[in-house]
Amino acid sequence: MPELRKDAVTGTWVIVAAERSKRPHDFNLQGHHLKHNDCIFCYGNENKTPPEVLAWRPLGGEPNTPGWTVRAFPNKFPAVTVQGAPDCRETPDGNIMTAVGAHEVIVDCPDHSVSFGQLSDRQAELVIQALVERFRVLSRNPMVRYIQVFKNCGTAAGSSIEHVHWQLISVPVVPENVLRETAGAEKYREKHGVCGYCRMISGQGTGGERVIETGADFVVFSPFASRFPYETWILPRRHEADFRGIGDKELTSLGRILRKTVGRIEQALDYPPYNIVLHSAPLDKGYRDYHWHLEIMPRLSVAAGFELGTGVFINPVAPEISAAVLREADPGMRQEPVRKGGN
Amino acid sequence: MPELRKDAVTGTWVIVAAERSKRPHDFNLQGHHLKHNDCIFCYGNENKTPPEVLAWRPLGGEPNTPGWTVRAFPNKFPAVTVQGAPDCRETPDGNIMTAVGAHEVIVDCPDHSVSFGQLSDRQAELVIQALVERFRVLSRNPMVRYIQVFKNCGTAAGSSIEHVHWQLISVPVVPENVLRETAGAEKYREKHGVCGYCRMISGQGTGGERVIETGADFVVFSPFASRFPYETWILPRRHEADFRGIGDKELTSLGRILRKTVGRIEQALDYPPYNIVLHSAPLDKGYRDYHWHLEIMPRLSVAAGFELGTGVFINPVAPEISAAVLREADPGMRQEPVRKGGN
Repeated sequence: MPELRKDAVTGTWVIVAAERSKRPHDFNLQGHHLKHNDCIFCYGNENKTPPEVLAWRPLGGEPNTPGWTVRAFPNKFPAVTVQGAPDCRETPDGNIMTAVGAHEVIVDCPDHSVSFGQLSDRQAELVIQALVERFRVLSRNPMVRYIQVFKNCGTAAGSSIEHVHWQLISVPVVPENVLRETAGAEKYREKHGVCGYCRMISGQGTGGERVIETGADFVVFSPFASRFPYETWILPRRHEADFRGIGDKELTSLGRILRKTVGRIEQALDYPPYNIVLHSAPLDKGYRDYHWHLEIMPRLSVAAGFELGTGVFINPVAPEISAAVLREADPGMRQEPVRKGGN
Repeated sequence: MPELRKDAVTGTWVIVAAERSKRPHDFNLQGHHLKHNDCIFCYGNENKTPPEVLAWRPLGGEPNTPGWTVRAFPNKFPAVTVQGAPDCRETPDGNIMTAVGAHEVIVDCPDHSVSFGQLSDRQAELVIQALVERFRVLSRNPMVRYIQVFKNCGTAAGSSIEHVHWQLISVPVVPENVLRETAGAEKYREKHGVCGYCRMISGQGTGGERVIETGADFVVFSPFASRFPYETWILPRRHEADFRGIGDKELTSLGRILRKTVGRIEQALDYPPYNIVLHSAPLDKGYRDYHWHLEIMPRLSVAAGFELGTGVFINPVAPEISAAVLREADPGMRQEPVRKGGN
């Protein structure tokens, strides 16, 4: 069973995923991408994944068969387990509990060769809709305290599968980063009388030097203290702590602006490896001062000893430069979804 | 000038290193290693580095010429600047200050093709001695609040230079990770009446399932909440917060046991990329409850979206397995240093 273990001094949790256990020779540093035909995320290989938990099939059809536009299913090699209860135990070495939770995959489109920035606006919207729906379903489990939604794209961003997809992992603890961020948001509000994230948006009028795009519902910008070259945040204009609070109109806007932003990054940086990370409030309390958002992190450099020791990232690109480059980048817009018969 | 910027909400510092600024096409994801003859860390290229700040020449000789066994100099592309004062300014976006500090390199031996685990015990001891000496010198600058000592080995660990070396970066702030760790150590002491790190050592008698080696002065083990596969810590038996407090006998022991431990990792994992990070107390206060140590992190997997979002690492190798593998590994001992005429 995968375990959550907490360092007795720092309080940092880790997941020791026994099911994924590897001996020295099992690691593949170069990464490998499955060939097109072997991809279990492609049409015709639905029986090679665990049974689907969501699929949009505009023309109908049986579950776990081709014909879907977006499809979600449990991860075949989960980092957490759906079985049992967390059962936190204190040991002399630190706390330990079963890593109870769900680990799901959402495949963004049937086409193996398409990137997220190459999706149609409509397809991107469907993907966001699927994310919201699975997030809502997973959050109903009372043992779950936090859900991390993320996208890994490219080997250097930790992805072993090329076919464009998202993942959700739910956990029975509130992770340290989330605690720090929500506590910081509360402190900021107390000190300044306004949400720190709302402040970031209002400080970024059109023409601001770190702004990339301003939409009716979302603002895209390079954050002041960017950790990564070309790090990009997407913030909803409306103050809301919880991703589940997203409205229908916002959902459509988010699909469009996220696709466009990833398109800019793909064009400017030649399809770099990247991660997208959703930041949303923990599930178990009303974190009114928090403000959900997305963080996009191209992985052009490697966190090395200095970063691992201090937590301070060295960023060789000033966010003002990053914003200028991405503002001018072609967002690679396509008008219509690709609807191929197979993959 | 490189800047330190602090996120207004999370309080996280970053260094925006303008001098290292890169446009999109400047990033090299595959990494590249300089050819042997072009290596500026090799004999004969001393004039291609900034002037040395330390060098041991057993047979004498002029500064910045061959004949040294260990050599230190400022980094040619520093992440911080030795000029000016920090001058912290509050802005609406967050705090900002000049990243004042030193960024130095220590080359472990003249031989380009030797790994740290292949050094002689005596050579490893000389390296530790050089680290302690430069740490002490840099700590005399009253603007410096923390010094990070680290080794990056291999492209996937963030190193662009193959020739074996260490780096030191001093900064005018106490980084967040360090604050959390020292606060955690204090809390642990308050709660349990004993240092958390001393507790880790006493809990690891010979035969403990996470112990790799127990020496007279140091204990080597896989930590309970290992974040990385084959993560390995080296703790001094004697409680001491500050690396500068290391004694002469400990220094000799550390050279030997660190070389041996890296040798085990090199043999077991076939010369993997790795980082070594020194954890020592901040310079500006007496952190009596802290306990300095070294953390060695092989970089066999990539921190992806889940880790970036939560700070929770997913480790596919249980530390009990890691310790068993490394305990049995050949530490690759060599009796005498390699002393070649050139590089």
